[in-house]
Amino acid sequence: MSKVAEAKTFEGVAAQVKGARKAARTLSRLSATDRNKILLTAADLLEAHEAEILKANQQDCALLEHEISEGKASAALLKRLKTSSSGIKDMARQVRDVAGMEDPLGQTLSTTELDDGLILNKVSCPLGVVAVIFESRPDAIPQVGSLAIKTGNGLVLKGGTEARLTNRVLVSLWHKALATVDPLLGNAICALEDRADVARILEMDRDIDLVVPRGSTEFVNYVFQHSHIPVLGHGSGICHIYVDDAADLAQATGIIVDAKTQYPAACNSTEKVLVHQEIAGEFLPILVQALQSAGVEIRACERTTAICSKLEIVPATEEDWHTEYGDLRITIKVVEGLQTAIDHINHYGSRHTDCILTENNPAAEQFMAEVDAASVFHNASTRFADGFRYGLGAEIGISNSKLHARGPVGLDGLLTYKYKLHGNGQTVSTYANGSKSFKHRRIK
Amino acid sequence: MSKVAEAKTFEGVAAQVKGARKAARTLSRLSATDRNKILLTAADLLEAHEAEILKANQQDCALLEHEISEGKASAALLKRLKTSSSGIKDMARQVRDVAGMEDPLGQTLSTTELDDGLILNKVSCPLGVVAVIFESRPDAIPQVGSLAIKTGNGLVLKGGTEARLTNRVLVSLWHKALATVDPLLGNAICALEDRADVARILEMDRDIDLVVPRGSTEFVNYVFQHSHIPVLGHGSGICHIYVDDAADLAQATGIIVDAKTQYPAACNSTEKVLVHQEIAGEFLPILVQALQSAGVEIRACERTTAICSKLEIVPATEEDWHTEYGDLRITIKVVEGLQTAIDHINHYGSRHTDCILTENNPAAEQFMAEVDAASVFHNASTRFADGFRYGLGAEIGISNSKLHARGPVGLDGLLTYKYKLHGNGQTVSTYANGSKSFKHRRIK
Repeated sequence: MSKVAEAKTFEGVAAQVKGARKAARTLSRLSATDRNKILLTAADLLEAHEAEILKANQQDCALLEHEISEGKASAALLKRLKTSSSGIKDMARQVRDVAGMEDPLGQTLSTTELDDGLILNKVSCPLGVVAVIFESRPDAIPQVGSLAIKTGNGLVLKGGTEARLTNRVLVSLWHKALATVDPLLGNAICALEDRADVARILEMDRDIDLVVPRGSTEFVNYVFQHSHIPVLGHGSGICHIYVDDAADLAQATGIIVDAKTQYPAACNSTEKVLVHQEIAGEFLPILVQALQSAGVEIRACERTTAICSKLEIVPATEEDWHTEYGDLRITIKVVEGLQTAIDHINHYGSRHTDCILTENNPAAEQFMAEVDAASVFHNASTRFADGFRYGLGAEIGISNSKLHARGPVGLDGLLTYKYKLHGNGQTVSTYANGSKSFKHRRIK
Repeated sequence: MSKVAEAKTFEGVAAQVKGARKAARTLSRLSATDRNKILLTAADLLEAHEAEILKANQQDCALLEHEISEGKASAALLKRLKTSSSGIKDMARQVRDVAGMEDPLGQTLSTTELDDGLILNKVSCPLGVVAVIFESRPDAIPQVGSLAIKTGNGLVLKGGTEARLTNRVLVSLWHKALATVDPLLGNAICALEDRADVARILEMDRDIDLVVPRGSTEFVNYVFQHSHIPVLGHGSGICHIYVDDAADLAQATGIIVDAKTQYPAACNSTEKVLVHQEIAGEFLPILVQALQSAGVEIRACERTTAICSKLEIVPATEEDWHTEYGDLRITIKVVEGLQTAIDHINHYGSRHTDCILTENNPAAEQFMAEVDAASVFHNASTRFADGFRYGLGAEIGISNSKLHARGPVGLDGLLTYKYKLHGNGQTVSTYANGSKSFKHRRIK
């Protein structure tokens, strides 16, 4: 592409993003009733256009199958791309769920009377424009669309090329729903299709307030490295379960098998198990056999190997502790006790989700206080760390960073606040020279 | 310095930071009473060691005066470095104020019953370790020290070399105060002195959770560009005042003069004034004369120049609208009305603090909703945008970013949350296969 054509395309993307910003300003000033009306209309449109969505999706799937047959794409993509009549009903239900949630915009978070007639309100408001870059799953569009409209944000979508036709239909339904309230609102959601647009998005730090990369660890890390825009995402999920000496061992086996095998590719599936030395002799042979029966390859420390000498175990290397397998492999280690387990997790963990299995509540409390992770669990599978299971409604993503939104992120992640100060002519000099002083009366 | 020596020093810094992390874990588990006891002890120690602090400060000042006399440092530094008996009393008072604030740690922000016996709590917790890099002002140490201890965070301090002796005494008092509760707690605050340590801090993205650069715009931008650690700070403060056609003009002049001249170097002082065309003819000659009497240089648009043809005005260039002067200069423009003013501010502003002067409340509401800034004011000087004036107690810094903490930032900026899930053996597979379903009952 020539330099001139390139520049033109960048201008095109910039114009779309600025359009989203402007339309979002109008969106954010709509009443909650109007924003919810858009969501309910979109849900109805999803169901009414089922045939059209399915037809586009079948065309996308046929193209992808062709690529898979030529070895140009992985079969796993197809499973995520394919939707169905019940899939579309789920999308509509999720959009209606978001419509039913309490309005998060314009909430007064605190009020302080700084002095007579000088009132400071801290009020929730939208971020502005959020860019979501996602892979094949078409249900991402109803999900993030409903969160963005509910919170008054503009949305820049860049979906996977393999879902191009499906995505076009889904985006057109959002445009229709937005237009029922105001014809100019359609710009609030814009969809980019070109792979090169990702780099363009990452440069627009003045007009995009948050980037949400949803995809492989490599892609998420690429975005973290290449963007000056704040990023909401997670690089890796190295989740631990620590089996305390006071654990209910029968329960422990069930939880660990679930946490590893229920969906091994998920970021919240367990990758590492630490076992208290007092119960290792009794517990490990049972656990290893249960995992092996479920098809899990075991890597472990020397003490585990010695205890399970009759079972097939790969010796764990230092690298194993840093690795998110994302498949049916797990690493096991015998530890001296609670404090060693906490230190190990804080050293090797990814601050995503870590769990203690114990009937000793003070031990659980210490673990949950001292382990540095977005989610800390007691006697439950790490697979529960998810926006839907947490009851957040739809999920914009999962964040491993500590600032702003952490863990599974729903509506809250798309909001910030501003301070609104109402006065009647106050100047700072009268306070600086001592002729007036602040009251700082907390009203709310 | 040889490579080996360099590596040693980095190891030294890393060990100090890891020590702060470990001590912070203990600190965060102390009761509110114990954390407040540390603060009250530190306040007493500040007053008891007044002579020692003043002596160290006089030595620092003498060294700096020598450098100034040789042209190696600016005289402005000396003013900020110098403290006094009343300055120390202010430090102690501020530490006691923070001790008196409500405990922000371990607050349950929400509780959801996901299902029988599966309870999810969202609980406030410390960030971990915060690094504050600051220039000469020694009062930064009591201020950020009290915020860090109150919130259970470790603190890495890198102060200006010109305040080295003063800072050493102040840090030693924190160590004494921390040791009264637990001798190992002293590590929670560590002080670095070497300029090269700044680069080392910025590399430690695993062990430092937040960097707060307090200094020149250039320095803050350097940190934003060179750190993978989240940064709390603000690059520039280009604050606007829009004078609406329904403004009280007598009040408007007073506010603008205060906002520009009360402390022109501050980031919250006003740099740009937009005036509604309907009142420009009446208001501008009065405003320009008032500002010029206060020693302010006026740069302005052609319409302003035409109205004030008898007054000395420099024509404003495009660059002026992007420039934070930080001194007695201001740029003035006549605008068509409210919407033009909002668009201008959203285009040129720095999202710090912007103000509307008007007696028309709906116009004020629209301005405050649509202007994209951390603080939006109505009929008050922009100089009020400050942690002390907002009643936040001490201030860790001012943030221009929208994520996490925004505007003047106090205790809230040093906190995050974690999700704590308590179960009794639940696995996800029983929910995925439909044999159980979620209740998602919001308890709090």
